[in-house]
Amino acid sequence: MQISHNRNRLEQFSDGVFSIAITLLALDLQVPKLLSTTIAGGMSEILVLLPNVITFVISFITIAIFWVNHHHLTQEMTTVGRRVLWMNIIFLFFITLIPFGTNVASLNSTHSLAIMTYALILFAGSVSFTLLRCLTHRALGEQHVSIRRTLVGPAVYFLAVIVALIFTPIAYILLVIPPLFYFLPTSQNITT
Amino acid sequence: MQISHNRNRLEQFSDGVFSIAITLLALDLQVPKLLSTTIAGGMSEILVLLPNVITFVISFITIAIFWVNHHHLTQEMTTVGRRVLWMNIIFLFFITLIPFGTNVASLNSTHSLAIMTYALILFAGSVSFTLLRCLTHRALGEQHVSIRRTLVGPAVYFLAVIVALIFTPIAYILLVIPPLFYFLPTSQNITT
Amino acid sequence: MQISHNRNRLEQFSDGVFSIAITLLALDLQVPKLLSTTIAGGMSEILVLLPNVITFVISFITIAIFWVNHHHLTQEMTTVGRRVLWMNIIFLFFITLIPFGTNVASLNSTHSLAIMTYALILFAGSVSFTLLRCLTHRALGEQHVSIRRTLVGPAVYFLAVIVALIFTPIAYILLVIPPLFYFLPTSQNITT
Amino acid sequence: MQISHNRNRLEQFSDGVFSIAITLLALDLQVPKLLSTTIAGGMSEILVLLPNVITFVISFITIAIFWVNHHHLTQEMTTVGRRVLWMNIIFLFFITLIPFGTNVASLNSTHSLAIMTYALILFAGSVSFTLLRCLTHRALGEQHVSIRRTLVGPAVYFLAVIVALIFTPIAYILLVIPPLFYFLPTSQNITT
Repeated sequence: MQISHNRNRLEQFSDGVFSIAITLLALDLQVPKLLSTTIAGGMSEILVLLPNVITFVISFITIAIFWVNHHHLTQEMTTVGRRVLWMNIIFLFFITLIPFGTNVASLNSTHSLAIMTYALILFAGSVSFTLLRCLTHRALGEQHVSIRRTLVGPAVYFLAVIVALIFTPIAYILLVIPPLFYFLPTSQNITT
Repeated sequence: MQISHNRNRLEQFSDGVFSIAITLLALDLQVPKLLSTTIAGGMSEILVLLPNVITFVISFITIAIFWVNHHHLTQEMTTVGRRVLWMNIIFLFFITLIPFGTNVASLNSTHSLAIMTYALILFAGSVSFTLLRCLTHRALGEQHVSIRRTLVGPAVYFLAVIVALIFTPIAYILLVIPPLFYFLPTSQNITT
Repeated sequence: MQISHNRNRLEQFSDGVFSIAITLLALDLQVPKLLSTTIAGGMSEILVLLPNVITFVISFITIAIFWVNHHHLTQEMTTVGRRVLWMNIIFLFFITLIPFGTNVASLNSTHSLAIMTYALILFAGSVSFTLLRCLTHRALGEQHVSIRRTLVGPAVYFLAVIVALIFTPIAYILLVIPPLFYFLPTSQNITT
Repeated sequence: MQISHNRNRLEQFSDGVFSIAITLLALDLQVPKLLSTTIAGGMSEILVLLPNVITFVISFITIAIFWVNHHHLTQEMTTVGRRVLWMNIIFLFFITLIPFGTNVASLNSTHSLAIMTYALILFAGSVSFTLLRCLTHRALGEQHVSIRRTLVGPAVYFLAVIVALIFTPIAYILLVIPPLFYFLPTSQNITT
């Protein structure tokens, strides 16, 4: 009973962080004070926000996938040891940084360093989640932890960090791949 | 047991998003630094905030109704499949956009495009909730899902999007109709 | 089982709103960029924040008491009907306005209208909580609902609204009375 | 049953406050609008944020440790009396102030008074948690509550408050000691 309660608070605290981070994303969409009174004029003022909206959508889907995967992972947990607890906190650390990274990328949408920062946060989140999964499976006594397919996320994000230094639009495209990969029919096994 | 836990976290995460979105609404009420020292003078400075207050109240009631309906819907869920999970996330996406939409409409209370943006977000929230309801009922094996009455929300919000292009005050009035409709005695069946 | 779950989500959603509102209070403390490099000079810059700190502490304690009382009240609930659900939402509406009211009062700490706005929000919160208590007790079939003692809050807050028009420092003192009253040894019955 | 429910809402409300406070920390990282277009130039603009990042990381780890300890403590609770409830609220009061203190220290990273304010908030949080632990253990009827080791936190934070007046860099180092101490192998007993 103590163990399940343990897990319950880990989930409760994590859900708090997930739901706040995902809701704060929309706060960073800068609300425009429209100067032009015509619809066409206003439309062009709103279109300036397009990079912000794209980054917002990428971040929203990424956090949502992290949440779904976390949700599947905690269901497998029978005990929550000290290591799993702290690995989870490290993972949440990067989740809380996603709104910051999103904002940096939105404000400087063509700057290599900004996209690199954003990609680096997603990379770190992805790596820490993979480690959390390994620790959980090891605690369950699974001998052959198959992490081959789960390495797609960290690998693509790492590539995006490097590519951001050279050509930012391709880095953006790379950031969309892990979510797309998640929704592929064959990737269903990953979520388990 | 796995299934009920599933639903539990879906509710927990959704409640997090609902409660943050509804509390952030009030954050967007711009706090006035009153310049006039008299009560009459201060009152006129506060009255300028009236459109903000009206939009705030509409958004608060709308999110509250979405929460109540969501609350009724999840109680019917026996299993939470992948589709329901993601439809719920899409629905929450639009919930997190409501404070943004409210803010856009408050800042540009006479601009067609702003009211249209706001109405569009409410429309998308309403449509995604209707789809979530359909998916849930289909998962329960209900053959004749009666959605006739639940289409009132999407229809009126859609009308508001169109009307905002022509005459914004009427669009505002339309946004108040779905909440009013909800509180009508006959609409009680809808909430089930 | 359906009933208890009902109550569970009402509590979960309410706790979300309570915890966000109480944490946002501290966000409104304006962080000073200290200009003076000496400790004495910095101290005088910080002392300017004193009215903000006082209002912050009053609001924190007030929300905490509302939470404790809400917590006791929901424990008595056996069913959550439509009326109780919506009275709870109206109550939460005023809870979400407390950070706004705190901010208005902090920014305009000597302005009658600002203190009146703040007192009005606390008054409305207090009245709606009293109504929520009455509805809950009536649903339990209690015939003689003793609300005499619970009327202290609404009465004192109402007085503060009026007094704010005449002399703001006394209004401030009045706002401290309901919390003090709560901690009086004899007031323990009220919390049940 | 009433008792466990009691504890459940105390945990739920506390988890809300913890998760919001820890997520808001990242909000205070000021997002830079990079002016230089080169990577080297942008890097130097980002390095200016280094004190903010250090303070952010200290605060994140500190709140996380408070959460883990709180989590262990509430598991021991069999009843939640009025004193424990209010001591918990006082503790949460200082948790909600941590993002404010972090911000004050980030904005004025070399000012004695700012570091003192930050250290004072952590000191108060640490003291109130120690008191919460004592009250909980006393309610359990434990006669010899060993708090010797748990006094490390309050003592070091108190020292940091004093040292901040004389030499701020050493105060910063002191603030890192309680977290480090927590992760020492021998300190595992403290967390129980």
